Amino acid sequence: MARIPASEQPPAGAALRADAERNRERVLEAARHVFAEQGLDASTNAIARRAGVGVATLFRRFPTREDLIAAAFAEKMHAYAEAVDDALAAPDAWHGFCAYLERVCQMQADDRGFADVLTLTFPTAKAFEEQRKEIGEKLTKLLDSAKATGRLRPDFAHQDVPLILMANAGVITATKDAAPDAWRRLVGYLLQAFAAEAAQPLPDPPSRAQMYRALKRLAPTPHGARSSG
Amino acid sequence: MARIPASEQPPAGAALRADAERNRERVLEAARHVFAEQGLDASTNAIARRAGVGVATLFRRFPTREDLIAAAFAEKMHAYAEAVDDALAAPDAWHGFCAYLERVCQMQADDRGFADVLTLTFPTAKAFEEQRKEIGEKLTKLLDSAKATGRLRPDFAHQDVPLILMANAGVITATKDAAPDAWRRLVGYLLQAFAAEAAQPLPDPPSRAQMYRALKRLAPTPHGARSSG
Repeated sequence: MARIPASEQPPAGAALRADAERNRERVLEAARHVFAEQGLDASTNAIARRAGVGVATLFRRFPTREDLIAAAFAEKMHAYAEAVDDALAAPDAWHGFCAYLERVCQMQADDRGFADVLTLTFPTAKAFEEQRKEIGEKLTKLLDSAKATGRLRPDFAHQDVPLILMANAGVITATKDAAPDAWRRLVGYLLQAFAAEAAQPLPDPPSRAQMYRALKRLAPTPHGARSSG
Repeated sequence: MARIPASEQPPAGAALRADAERNRERVLEAARHVFAEQGLDASTNAIARRAGVGVATLFRRFPTREDLIAAAFAEKMHAYAEAVDDALAAPDAWHGFCAYLERVCQMQADDRGFADVLTLTFPTAKAFEEQRKEIGEKLTKLLDSAKATGRLRPDFAHQDVPLILMANAGVITATKDAAPDAWRRLVGYLLQAFAAEAAQPLPDPPSRAQMYRALKRLAPTPHGARSSG
């Protein structure tokens, strides 16, 4: 079906589209604010209220909570992708790896909603998951390079990265207001444990399939059913 | 005011008391079950429903959520106290310390509600907090002894223990169903980081006052106001 170029559409349509776009932006801004403060299980009503739109409008724009989360955190996901690119470009891969972990954990500390996003997966938000997959592949490269320097312990697993992010999210949830730098201490300990010099035998990591299932759980959502997909 | 000895009270009173005691037990059993499955922010209604009592009865027995939590987890707190006693009795204090951390993290993995209890404090539940204080004092002794062996790094802080429990709670919340042993990997890494041989400079720990404030946050509670105290 041929699409009518925007310039030939009646002004009423253009005005409607501009209005819809404004609403969309308002909802996303409100979602970012509310998620950052309350985490991903914040109520949809609170987001709609803050955006000054009806809940019905919000649902029309974002039929599932996954859609809303993916759209609200699109920019942060770009920053997250940049962190792994920068680490790959670092002259020393071990330093690149350490800086990457600290930067991502800092991103979690700065935004409680994003802390949860990094420990979840949203199968229906295709573009979002495509990007996450790409970042995952770069991370594999980073880990290989860091191991090749002899500094990262050889038994460090890809699955250990989400594991750390889950642990960090636990510390941040608990200490955010009272001790906002407490997570640095946890990450400091972990980085020392990841150094090859200190390596002692460890319990096996969860398998990648297990970890994927763990990432697939979704925070309780007032959007009702998880998704339509 | 003189109290009437139980034996002189009319049988009706005794029957009422037995009935109240049965209700109390039923509520506690339901609370333990629901907290273990859903965590401490499970709804009071769900607990009352499972116990087969009205919400009003539940509120009469346990006016605040703190009271309910303290009563429901009294036994687990005893087991937690035992863990530190056993560690203090171990012939090698470093091994005692490692075994203690693993045991407590295992207790968290076995019971999601208890995982949260260990990262919270309940100022109005006096006996419960008295016991926690006692355990804290024993823990100080354990850390001192473990440091004296030269195996536990000297900069390990008392506050690092709740920090670990918070991190472990984050991993358990995320992996409980999909990868129930994932927490062992985290604890394995951390124990290696705590060994004096591996010690490198670290970010400062949160202060004890900060950590106390972090422990004082309470999970969102359908009991309404946090407590009356």
